[in-house]
Amino acid sequence: MGDDAAVIEREHDCEVITKDLLIEDQHFRLRYFTPAHLAKKALHVNLSDIAAMGATAEYAILGLAIPSTLSPTWLSEFLAHFAEECKKVNIYLIGGDTCFSPQGFLISITIIGRVTKSELKLRSGAKPLDILCLLGYPGDAYAGLQLLERDDCAFAPLLHAARSPTALIEEGKWLGEKAAVTAMIDTSDGLYIDLQHLCEASLVGAKLELNQLPVSSLLPEACTYLKIAQEKCQLIGGEDYGLLFTVQKDDYPDLKKAFQQAFTTPFASIGYITETPGIKLLRDNTAYAFHYHPFSHFGE
Amino acid sequence: MGDDAAVIEREHDCEVITKDLLIEDQHFRLRYFTPAHLAKKALHVNLSDIAAMGATAEYAILGLAIPSTLSPTWLSEFLAHFAEECKKVNIYLIGGDTCFSPQGFLISITIIGRVTKSELKLRSGAKPLDILCLLGYPGDAYAGLQLLERDDCAFAPLLHAARSPTALIEEGKWLGEKAAVTAMIDTSDGLYIDLQHLCEASLVGAKLELNQLPVSSLLPEACTYLKIAQEKCQLIGGEDYGLLFTVQKDDYPDLKKAFQQAFTTPFASIGYITETPGIKLLRDNTAYAFHYHPFSHFGE
Repeated sequence: MGDDAAVIEREHDCEVITKDLLIEDQHFRLRYFTPAHLAKKALHVNLSDIAAMGATAEYAILGLAIPSTLSPTWLSEFLAHFAEECKKVNIYLIGGDTCFSPQGFLISITIIGRVTKSELKLRSGAKPLDILCLLGYPGDAYAGLQLLERDDCAFAPLLHAARSPTALIEEGKWLGEKAAVTAMIDTSDGLYIDLQHLCEASLVGAKLELNQLPVSSLLPEACTYLKIAQEKCQLIGGEDYGLLFTVQKDDYPDLKKAFQQAFTTPFASIGYITETPGIKLLRDNTAYAFHYHPFSHFGE
Repeated sequence: MGDDAAVIEREHDCEVITKDLLIEDQHFRLRYFTPAHLAKKALHVNLSDIAAMGATAEYAILGLAIPSTLSPTWLSEFLAHFAEECKKVNIYLIGGDTCFSPQGFLISITIIGRVTKSELKLRSGAKPLDILCLLGYPGDAYAGLQLLERDDCAFAPLLHAARSPTALIEEGKWLGEKAAVTAMIDTSDGLYIDLQHLCEASLVGAKLELNQLPVSSLLPEACTYLKIAQEKCQLIGGEDYGLLFTVQKDDYPDLKKAFQQAFTTPFASIGYITETPGIKLLRDNTAYAFHYHPFSHFGE
């Protein structure tokens, strides 16, 4: 309980189980999600939770509630893409449940993964002075969602980040194997909230340096265009499916080097863990006032 | 795939996993479901799938999509009852996912169970001449649902069958242990459809004697009152969560006797398996014409 996935300790290893709901007009709109986009996103949202535990996904179960407005063609395309995406990431689709929905399309996926006990990562292992690290570009998916909501096709890579995220599957497994990684979570709710979850589970606080947040090449321009403060987008925007994790200070330089030899995924150290609870934001080493006002899912 | 639950073969035994969606105004209405009713039903609908595999439930994961119309009090009552029901049947609630729903309350439950390989029951094992057996009273839940839809409080036991079904957990496990039981399914979709599923999976047909269907004491009167043909109610009415299974002919008398020593649950032999595909209905040993017209979920 309280982690990205539920954990069952078995004799030799741990089973890791996710369950994420995706609801039409809450998590997606069919106006701008093709069957292929939605199939991939629904799967990868769950795979991201498995990756955040350092685990390997093995099986998927697909539950669908289908409204009468959805055409059979649309649905069969969705199913074909879902099966194809499962194949790509080497997991078996072992069952499901379909029913009629009186209102809206609804996707409920369960993924079952495995990890050896020593490689299981939780949110609760962070210690004071651990380096806070982030994979991925925070805010891109949120900016992309705002563009999609406006039916605005500019900034294609941001639209892609919102519609078709790719879980950091191999990166999560790789980090799972490293004893120096003390805690991990995926950034599905937004960097600030997910850091809060990690800190609360670990009974620690964090200092986060805003200048060190990785910024994708299009985000500043998109934020100006959308009239959103870039920091807010990076801190509060959800659905990025990056990985936020903590690394023991002494091991950090070697781990970073080894990671960058293995992957091209953007890797940034964005702060460190403190004994004092709470999250302190810094800009150029100076305290930065920030009042958390969540975005609603669609629009501010 | 194709059974009541997905199966993963592990080294020593099988893991059995269900995933059922319950959707407001499709599977239930909050007008006549208290939090306690709904918590129990949501859990037992899934436990029934586990029982139909001959397995023992061990863990539950609860996913909820919550509309703004649902009060915190209602929700916390629901959660307290759900936790209590889990405790009663000795399973651990190990995780979940909650999100906002733009329309309607939605419950997605996953149950993980276990069964040794030799005791796993599938739909696909029925052989010609096997005796077709049923636990429970078919039609009661459907009649109860019609009464609830009319806000009619007569026939309390039928309302109870619709609102608060109890999965045949111990009976399913007991039948799982018996090698003479060749196939099993729960009657969630309605006896006729579930028999069809069993026959199709086993590549066989069945003869079903209507006179042998167990009838609860209130069903005939309720059917007259509701102006529904009793046979139709028994054959097509869903949500009974009884168990339909097949038993090798020679072992049938001993199995029935042993069952009735162990349980008070209504047990009936209702026909037998045939080599010829398709379901033949008999009344007093004479062919009975029946054209399947499904009920819609709410009302005819």
